[in-house]
Amino acid sequence: MTTTATPARPTQPTRHYDAQALWQKDKDHFIHPFTDFSVFHDKGCDLITDSDGIYVSDAHGNRYIDGIAGLWCVNVGHGRAEIGQAMADQATRMAYFSTFNNLSNAPATELAAKLAELAPAHLNHVFYSCGGSAANDATIRLVHYYFNRLGKPNKKRILSRRNAYHGTTYLAASLTGIESNNWDFDTLDHLVTHLSEANLYRRPDGMSEADYCDQLVAELEDTIERLGADNIAAFIAEPIMGAGGVLMAPKGYHARMQAVCRANDILFIADEVVTGFGRLGHFFASEAVFDTRPDIINVAKGLSSGYAPLGATLISDDLFEVLGTPQRKGGVLSTGFTYSGHPVSCAAALANIEIMEREGICASVREVGPYLERQLKTLAGHATVGDVRGSHFMLAIENVADKATKALLPVEARVGDRVAAEAQQRGLIIRPVGHLNIISPPLIWDREVVDRVVAILDEAFAATTASLRADGFL
Amino acid sequence: MTTTATPARPTQPTRHYDAQALWQKDKDHFIHPFTDFSVFHDKGCDLITDSDGIYVSDAHGNRYIDGIAGLWCVNVGHGRAEIGQAMADQATRMAYFSTFNNLSNAPATELAAKLAELAPAHLNHVFYSCGGSAANDATIRLVHYYFNRLGKPNKKRILSRRNAYHGTTYLAASLTGIESNNWDFDTLDHLVTHLSEANLYRRPDGMSEADYCDQLVAELEDTIERLGADNIAAFIAEPIMGAGGVLMAPKGYHARMQAVCRANDILFIADEVVTGFGRLGHFFASEAVFDTRPDIINVAKGLSSGYAPLGATLISDDLFEVLGTPQRKGGVLSTGFTYSGHPVSCAAALANIEIMEREGICASVREVGPYLERQLKTLAGHATVGDVRGSHFMLAIENVADKATKALLPVEARVGDRVAAEAQQRGLIIRPVGHLNIISPPLIWDREVVDRVVAILDEAFAATTASLRADGFL
Repeated sequence: MTTTATPARPTQPTRHYDAQALWQKDKDHFIHPFTDFSVFHDKGCDLITDSDGIYVSDAHGNRYIDGIAGLWCVNVGHGRAEIGQAMADQATRMAYFSTFNNLSNAPATELAAKLAELAPAHLNHVFYSCGGSAANDATIRLVHYYFNRLGKPNKKRILSRRNAYHGTTYLAASLTGIESNNWDFDTLDHLVTHLSEANLYRRPDGMSEADYCDQLVAELEDTIERLGADNIAAFIAEPIMGAGGVLMAPKGYHARMQAVCRANDILFIADEVVTGFGRLGHFFASEAVFDTRPDIINVAKGLSSGYAPLGATLISDDLFEVLGTPQRKGGVLSTGFTYSGHPVSCAAALANIEIMEREGICASVREVGPYLERQLKTLAGHATVGDVRGSHFMLAIENVADKATKALLPVEARVGDRVAAEAQQRGLIIRPVGHLNIISPPLIWDREVVDRVVAILDEAFAATTASLRADGFL
Repeated sequence: MTTTATPARPTQPTRHYDAQALWQKDKDHFIHPFTDFSVFHDKGCDLITDSDGIYVSDAHGNRYIDGIAGLWCVNVGHGRAEIGQAMADQATRMAYFSTFNNLSNAPATELAAKLAELAPAHLNHVFYSCGGSAANDATIRLVHYYFNRLGKPNKKRILSRRNAYHGTTYLAASLTGIESNNWDFDTLDHLVTHLSEANLYRRPDGMSEADYCDQLVAELEDTIERLGADNIAAFIAEPIMGAGGVLMAPKGYHARMQAVCRANDILFIADEVVTGFGRLGHFFASEAVFDTRPDIINVAKGLSSGYAPLGATLISDDLFEVLGTPQRKGGVLSTGFTYSGHPVSCAAALANIEIMEREGICASVREVGPYLERQLKTLAGHATVGDVRGSHFMLAIENVADKATKALLPVEARVGDRVAAEAQQRGLIIRPVGHLNIISPPLIWDREVVDRVVAILDEAFAATTASLRADGFL
């Protein structure tokens, strides 16, 4: 084990915790999300107990560079005492009161106005939730309400995409297009049609980027033709697909998809839960990066840098004109959550945005992001590295058995897990997703950190190649 | 305006806030849940800015006794600096890291173990979410997965009840049985069948409580007969219906409903989002109060006293044996949220439970609750008070035009709003829901506070009667 990125002393002493007792309690009582319990029942948990800036530490005092920002979340980095203090101040001053009817609280109001200021000009109305799943779920509910109010009760079907990730409420899981996500779970197939994902790396052999874009747009047009525009409410898409594998669309794809939607009176929803709040160098990527003007943008994660559960749905003036008119005398817009506009979560988000603005984090991402991309591409010489892709602080490496054919290694090789384990041994946490490794760090990495990370990854890929060869997979 | 409960000086000076500017921002940007925008567009918001113990204050420095605990939430009362401090400490130490796969954090683990200790003995496994809607949504998703895993793919329909409230995700709104909640919203009617609510006050004229219970149980049996037990996955019920009107079931109802469910291999789910965490004098009411042993109990709200968004689903050992076995090699339990087991929210809940235990809040509710019930019943002499019902710190007053026939006042009389406004003018916030007024205070009210509250309500109902007479409604 090298010590490139692992000082002997953890950030803070891991005081107070009895690691063994916690491990047992966790094993006995905590149903972890997205977990293979055949492994968990034996192995139990790894406790992340401490953090500081770009680092997290486990219960044994091992310190790692956090290469995934918790889970695409901790954009301003760990251990920001001023966010904690803002939360404590608000929790002590006024922790919670309903925002139903005409009741409100100062942080929710301030944040709504701030989001309207940061978002594209036509998005001025904020509906709160506690995370991305609930934001996407609430969005579809509002979209259906919208078309009911317009007297178009058949305009209900949602177009999503294969390998999309939109969360795990019943409806959000139905929007999600990652097949393994819904093994043995039920989905609402009557509500959702999945188009092809946009995946530049695995586009048909020999097809140009422009032709590939034409093909995807044609598929949308064909689908509208087949289902009937009168039956389709909305198209929802992540600007760059996240959990589906950091899949990049061909140039111009999103703007052209939106144009087709607009021509057919189909709402265009951008799920910016991952791409929002600086990861691509802007608070909102839709307009700044992808030249789209979504009717609705959903954000979460980076909105609060994960310090508190929070999601928000940004809604256009045009839509709000309908949503903000009662459906009948005495009717209310009867949706929303107890914790919609939670004062403490909104206070965390305001402190987070203040840090982002004060420290110029978006500008830093625009500067360091391309360097990170370039340096990661230096790993392309490793035997398994088929593709290094993504943008700015949202990146993935796709491992393959054969770079020419792009053939994958067998699942049993667990190549993503191997790379992640080799990196972790060297003091860096990255995320394995099947044969991929995802890198989605806090946005505070500078060039020096990038250099250390790429040096670790260089060793990790070399070690992985060696172990795959030793095990007969290469 | 009396000053019974309104000291001239607010709890804290309402510093920092420009009330007029906030009011405008709120009006321009915040889509409030459950709001009549025909009113809101003119009137805008009332900002709740400060709080302390049993009080909240608005942006103008008016101080009120909080008679609704924010929204059935703030069980330990407002302004608990130690919860705020616990949140700040955790946010600064380690605000967020994923709990997917085998990753964990100390507060989520400690809380899971604590919940297993507090819950009925057979409920030892905790699945986290960020509130009641998501908890109920995730529960149904897990229940469907469970029956798929058992090779019973048709066992999917959920029995709920009219006037039930289970939240507002797409699925949770479908479980909800309050008709006006879904005006112009879509619901998943193929998944849910609504039985009659259990409403002792409005049971058929002249029917005994025992006969009424028989009738409700027979309806369940008939429904199972009609739909087929092989097509029904679960029955979900609040022990006392909350937002539906604090509806009380006849004695023995829940235990008998569970017995029928059990005989038909139908899971019994208790939605204890409101009844849990002390409101009825126990951390969990199902077993202690209603003599049931649910397969699943959902909690939220009081779990963190609303200081942070958090929900939890308590799952039985029997169910977990199935849920905790992969559906296939390499399969994961592919559901859960980014913020499942959020460290800061779980730290808030642990601090909240510590306060509840240290201060003996459940015991206090068992002592003060019956006094509150008795004193509220002294209001029965007022012209509109048809029923005073509920239990302990979960109470409602049903206003009627005629006590003998239980006929309601016309909707235009807005009797619930009138009573609430009269109370608020006198320094007490209670919740109007149609013709009802709901009282669900922080659990720290003592007898002296109860006396002040009932004195205010006595004046408020007298004033309401006078105004209804003046307007020709009585």
